[in-house]
Order: sequence, then C-alpha cells, then structure tokens
Amino acid sequence: MSVDISAPNLVLVRHGQSQWNLENRFTGWIDVDLSEQGRAEALIAGQQIREAGIEFDAAWTSVLQRAIHTLWIILDEIDAPWLHVRRDWRLNERHYGALQGLNKAETAAEHGDEQVHIWRRSYDIPPPPLADDHPNHPRLDRRYRDIPTSSLPAAESLKLTLERVMPCWEEEIVPALREGQRLLIAAHGNSIRAIVKHLESISDDEITGLNIPTGMPLAYILDGYMTVLDRRYLAGEQAAAEAAAAVAAQGRAT
Amino acid sequence: MSVDISAPNLVLVRHGQSQWNLENRFTGWIDVDLSEQGRAEALIAGQQIREAGIEFDAAWTSVLQRAIHTLWIILDEIDAPWLHVRRDWRLNERHYGALQGLNKAETAAEHGDEQVHIWRRSYDIPPPPLADDHPNHPRLDRRYRDIPTSSLPAAESLKLTLERVMPCWEEEIVPALREGQRLLIAAHGNSIRAIVKHLESISDDEITGLNIPTGMPLAYILDGYMTVLDRRYLAGEQAAAEAAAAVAAQGRAT
Repeated sequence: MSVDISAPNLVLVRHGQSQWNLENRFTGWIDVDLSEQGRAEALIAGQQIREAGIEFDAAWTSVLQRAIHTLWIILDEIDAPWLHVRRDWRLNERHYGALQGLNKAETAAEHGDEQVHIWRRSYDIPPPPLADDHPNHPRLDRRYRDIPTSSLPAAESLKLTLERVMPCWEEEIVPALREGQRLLIAAHGNSIRAIVKHLESISDDEITGLNIPTGMPLAYILDGYMTVLDRRYLAGEQAAAEAAAAVAAQGRAT
Repeated sequence: MSVDISAPNLVLVRHGQSQWNLENRFTGWIDVDLSEQGRAEALIAGQQIREAGIEFDAAWTSVLQRAIHTLWIILDEIDAPWLHVRRDWRLNERHYGALQGLNKAETAAEHGDEQVHIWRRSYDIPPPPLADDHPNHPRLDRRYRDIPTSSLPAAESLKLTLERVMPCWEEEIVPALREGQRLLIAAHGNSIRAIVKHLESISDDEITGLNIPTGMPLAYILDGYMTVLDRRYLAGEQAAAEAAAAVAAQGRAT
C-alpha cells in the first residue's frame, strides 16, 4: 500500500462552536445547534477537504445536530450531499450527566472548583448522573427509542465514553474501512478522542490532556490492520496545535 | 388498524423549484440545486408536517441535491435532523437523456413541438439517449460508481422510470413499512408518480396526466398489504389541486 496522505481513508472533524460552547456551558447530549462561528468553522473545514482533493465513499456522524450540521455544510462544500450518511448515537459527545446546562461558574459554585477539575480532567470519574425521570434523560428522547434503556448513559467519564464509541468503531466503521471505503466522520471532542486514542495508542493518562481542535480535518491513512501509516491535520500541524491550545486555555465545555 | 390520518406511515414530498425549473429546462439527472423559492417551499412543507404533529422513524431521498436539500430543510423544521436517512439513486428524477439542459424553446426548435409533447406526455417513449461518452452520462459520475453500468439509464420514459423506482420500493421501502416504520420520502415528480401510480392503481394512460404539486406533503395510511386506507395532502385537496394545475399549466420541465 502506498502512503499518499492526499488520499486518506479516514478524516475526522470535530464540530465547530455551538451556542453553549460560546456560553461555556456543559453541553454533552443536549442538542444545541452550531453558532454562526461554528458554521463558519465547518465551511472552512469543507474548503480544506475540497482543496486537498479528498474524496469519500461514506460519512458518519452522531445524532446531535451540531455534528450533523457540520457534516451537511462540509458535504455541500465538497459537492457531495449525495454521499451515504450513517448517524450513530454512539458517536455522540460525552454525556455530562447533571452538569449539562450549567456554565463553569454555576458548576463551580455548586460543586467546588477542585471537583469540577476532577470531572473534566480525570479519565474514569463520571459526573453526577441525571435522575431517571429528568426530562433530559435520553430514555425520554424519541431519537433513542430503539436503543435498550440499559445502554443509555445518564453520565459518562471519558472512559465510559470510549467504551460506548468503540463498539461502533469495531462493528461498523472498521468493516467499512476494510472494504476499502474512504470515510468522513463529523463528531465531537470526546468521541473523536476515543478514536484517536485507539488509533494512536495513547495512554489513559495522556488522553485527558489531548485537545482536539474544532473544525480542523484530521486525515489518516490506515492499513487493513488499522495501523496508522500516516496522519496529518489538513490545516498543518502548527495551526492545529495552536487551535488545540486555544481550546485548552478556554477550558471550553463540551 | 385504526385509520388516523394525523398519524400516517408514509409521507411523500416533491422537491420545490430548482434553478432549472425556473428557466424551464429539462433537468432529469443534472444535479441542479433548489432556487430560493424552492427552499421556501421546503420550509412550508416542513411547517405543515410539524403542525400536523407527524413523526417519522426514517427518511428516504434520491442522490440529487434538490431532493436532499428539501429533506434537510424539512428535517430541521421538524427538529429531527437526527433521523436516519437513506439516499437511493432509484428515487432520482426521470432521466431526460439528450434533452437534459435544453429549455422548452431550444427543444422545440431542435425536435419540433409535436415530438416534444410526445416525449413529455407519452408513457413509454423515451427521449433520445445521452451518448455513452457524454460528460453527463451517469457512468462517469462518481456517485453512481457502485451501480452496474448496465443499470444506469441514458434516457427514460415514464415507464422506464417506474421500472427503476419499483425495485427500491419493493426491496427497501415496503419492508421498512411492514416493520412498522413511519417514512418520509423527499423525491421528484416522476419518482413520486411511480409510487403514487402503484399505491393508487392508476392506469398507464392516466398517470401521464397526473401532476404532483411541489413542496406539498402527501400523507398515506397503508396497511401491511400496502393497501391505501387513507390519503390526503396536508395543505388540503383544494390547495393541492390548484398547485398541480399550476404545474401542468406551466409545462414545467422536471
């Protein structure tokens, strides 16, 4: 297999800014739409993919509109709205439980700065769960009605997020890649972290410090064993590192 | 099964005006986008579905952007961009062969009024085909690369269009309906004609005179044998009939 990064078989894009990112609220599974800036970020991502001449055979996204709209904007920009799209709830953002909807100040006031830092930065400590009868519980949301209630989270650590993303990766996405399909995935900070952690063998400790920049297509060349032969941000490593640092500095809620 | 037209299991929507509809050019498989008016028609269709309180389990569309964008606008309007969407080339518009791109005046000048009328209004006479090496031939379009070349049309009569739509209906859509899924289909004048002809047992002679109004959701209640228990245009029969008459009067190219 020749390694030609201009013809990747996997491109990951984290959605751009949403209205709640802007307000620095924990969003998680709340279905907030992109902000104007988020739409502009998606458009730039689409332009980068178009200018790189990358083609796809299918696209994947979550069931949350900020990822879906990011994908739609990209598909229009690369003249491929006809591309097959699979939506999978397992590509959703990390479920932030009872923190969802709170901004950073509210969360700190309620739980203390140190505890909030632990929830944000630990690998395996989930935030407090949503009550079963909370109106935001996914079991009450019609988009999840075909999912067994026992599979639906009420709060997730990053570890639990990974454990939910990986079956989608292994059962759905890897078989498509092995068939030779070239895939575009538009998803979220933590579902993309799950895939990147797996592909690049990043440790549990390191992954919590890895920030995925928004709206920056990350292209991989994978072989049939899902070994990374090459990878790069289309915007360049420097621009991606700066954007990731900005995301980290902002402490941006996801 | 109770017949409650407020809870249909099938809703068909013909896309709104495209730029070439506006210029009265034969469009067929040319991937022209919606005009501003077409987007406004889609929005109204979405509002009608929302106001009727209709929910869906999945959506279907063609691989042409005027239908896909109609669907996207509707999905946003009914707060369901997360809905599973299947794109199928067999729901495309009738392929107008060598007439594609010509306006009514150009076509008449080249082929004569009477011949054009025959192509538009006969059931089984296809227009002249695209040459195999014509840049618009679907075999050269990457969206059809997985379709056997022998299945791809170079020109279709309404009859040939039906014969291409029906396998999609029988193999994909009917099984989903039989599973109890409630489906939204955003497609084209002639692919919707094919489904309506089949569901309502309309004769070959009559179907060429049946005009499907654009942007007007047509709701069906079907039983497990695909017998029509009830059907209605959400906008009302009067409004639909007037819109269909306007389409007919306009001689609007599709």
